[in-house]
Amino acid sequence: MTAGLVNGVHHLFTRVYYEDTDAAGIVYHANYLKFAERARTEMLRALGVEQGRLRRETGLAFAVKRCVVEYSRPALLDDELVVESRLVALGGASLEVDQRVKRGAAELARLAVRVACLGRDGRPARLPPALRAALMELLPKVEPDAT
Amino acid sequence: MTAGLVNGVHHLFTRVYYEDTDAAGIVYHANYLKFAERARTEMLRALGVEQGRLRRETGLAFAVKRCVVEYSRPALLDDELVVESRLVALGGASLEVDQRVKRGAAELARLAVRVACLGRDGRPARLPPALRAALMELLPKVEPDAT
Amino acid sequence: MTAGLVNGVHHLFTRVYYEDTDAAGIVYHANYLKFAERARTEMLRALGVEQGRLRRETGLAFAVKRCVVEYSRPALLDDELVVESRLVALGGASLEVDQRVKRGAAELARLAVRVACLGRDGRPARLPPALRAALMELLPKVEPDAT
Amino acid sequence: MTAGLVNGVHHLFTRVYYEDTDAAGIVYHANYLKFAERARTEMLRALGVEQGRLRRETGLAFAVKRCVVEYSRPALLDDELVVESRLVALGGASLEVDQRVKRGAAELARLAVRVACLGRDGRPARLPPALRAALMELLPKVEPDAT
Repeated sequence: MTAGLVNGVHHLFTRVYYEDTDAAGIVYHANYLKFAERARTEMLRALGVEQGRLRRETGLAFAVKRCVVEYSRPALLDDELVVESRLVALGGASLEVDQRVKRGAAELARLAVRVACLGRDGRPARLPPALRAALMELLPKVEPDAT
Repeated sequence: MTAGLVNGVHHLFTRVYYEDTDAAGIVYHANYLKFAERARTEMLRALGVEQGRLRRETGLAFAVKRCVVEYSRPALLDDELVVESRLVALGGASLEVDQRVKRGAAELARLAVRVACLGRDGRPARLPPALRAALMELLPKVEPDAT
Repeated sequence: MTAGLVNGVHHLFTRVYYEDTDAAGIVYHANYLKFAERARTEMLRALGVEQGRLRRETGLAFAVKRCVVEYSRPALLDDELVVESRLVALGGASLEVDQRVKRGAAELARLAVRVACLGRDGRPARLPPALRAALMELLPKVEPDAT
Repeated sequence: MTAGLVNGVHHLFTRVYYEDTDAAGIVYHANYLKFAERARTEMLRALGVEQGRLRRETGLAFAVKRCVVEYSRPALLDDELVVESRLVALGGASLEVDQRVKRGAAELARLAVRVACLGRDGRPARLPPALRAALMELLPKVEPDAT
């Protein structure tokens, strides 16, 4: 397995190659956004959505609207990383994903990403109902009140 | 001029090439972090600091610790962009820069970036005094109280 | 000047940033192709052609069909490079460019690039006459035979 | 399996993400060199060599000296590609690899890459004997003469 959903959390395994590193000997900071995008793409694919086909068939595309990245430790050449992605919010035309880049148990970077669904005109467009229903399943469940 | 300081605000002019774009026809979201890093590098160079030489001579390097990016409009192939960089805070071993990517007067993206100065051991290290003094000059002045 | 034609040879000046380097401390080999593409883009722009507009207005796009790169010395962080581009052949629907990446007088890499002009259907398409005429001016002149 | 050796030919499976594409809607030409480098890295890893560790322990690094790329058909977003790598020549301090990027049976690009082994001083250095022996096993066998 190189990618998959476990209890609503998506895991993508990815390797660090020379292309990802910089002259400081570590992964270049902007490349964590690439790793995170690969992970969101695979999370959608695990739900049956290929972005290229979605765009050709419906005109819908996903665009990052906001991204907060916090870097705690550097990733290095040859590292095998796992990107954990958790859907944390779901709007009519947007979603928010909490993503963590880890090497084993060590967290290297954490991203909070807000993605908008856009139509052909570049304006916000409602998520397709089937995708929305599938994403709902990934949202953390609110525990029923015990009282 | 392709880069320079005007009233404490650094301006870097940069062009969008095919390498910067993606299949959605716009600049790939992670590449704004590259544009911003080019601009911070030129801002330091305008203050007399070359990061490669700094690292060879003192072991000091700058590392992004936190980055918040908000995307408002997409940049397109052939666009000439300007990255405006404003130093907004200066600590003993870190600095914060507000950066805006514009096409003409239109703001396309805004970044708040916290950069740490690290020593050879990867731990926070004090900024060199000469650089710190030069950066102080870029901080917005607190207006003297008129009353 | 950061780019321009001098005696039929196009010169693009470009700086090496962290994004261009890798953990070996040098410019990542694939990135010389990016520098070369920036240079070809500016050579076309110097002739009045913007590729984005050309594509929107005529459907024509340029695609690299073949590239030979020879690396002689590594480029390093902070280097200011110049890419020299010489048109060496011009067909009905293609062109060949000899490109050299230099640091001062030292040649770091040399590229021989064949670019095809493609129509909306992805098939070879004749170069627009005005562009073809402008490119002809860049071809090395054959000296008239003195005998 | 995402990578492995089959009859001396190394296969790396890799997916096309937005980061790999450009505004022409296809994989950016320089990125095939990244795919090829990932494949060579995994071919070495399959022989027990991690380049990062090799460099830390022996100072040896691999550098691309020459690369010929021929592009026949474009790769697209979401494509699953396989990079086939065949060692075709082995010198004392260099090796040559024939690499093909395919989508299913269709060949999209072909690369001939010469890689040099360099020491800490940047000069050619002999391949470590164990790696050399392992690479010898990958070379195509000369058929014994039947007569």
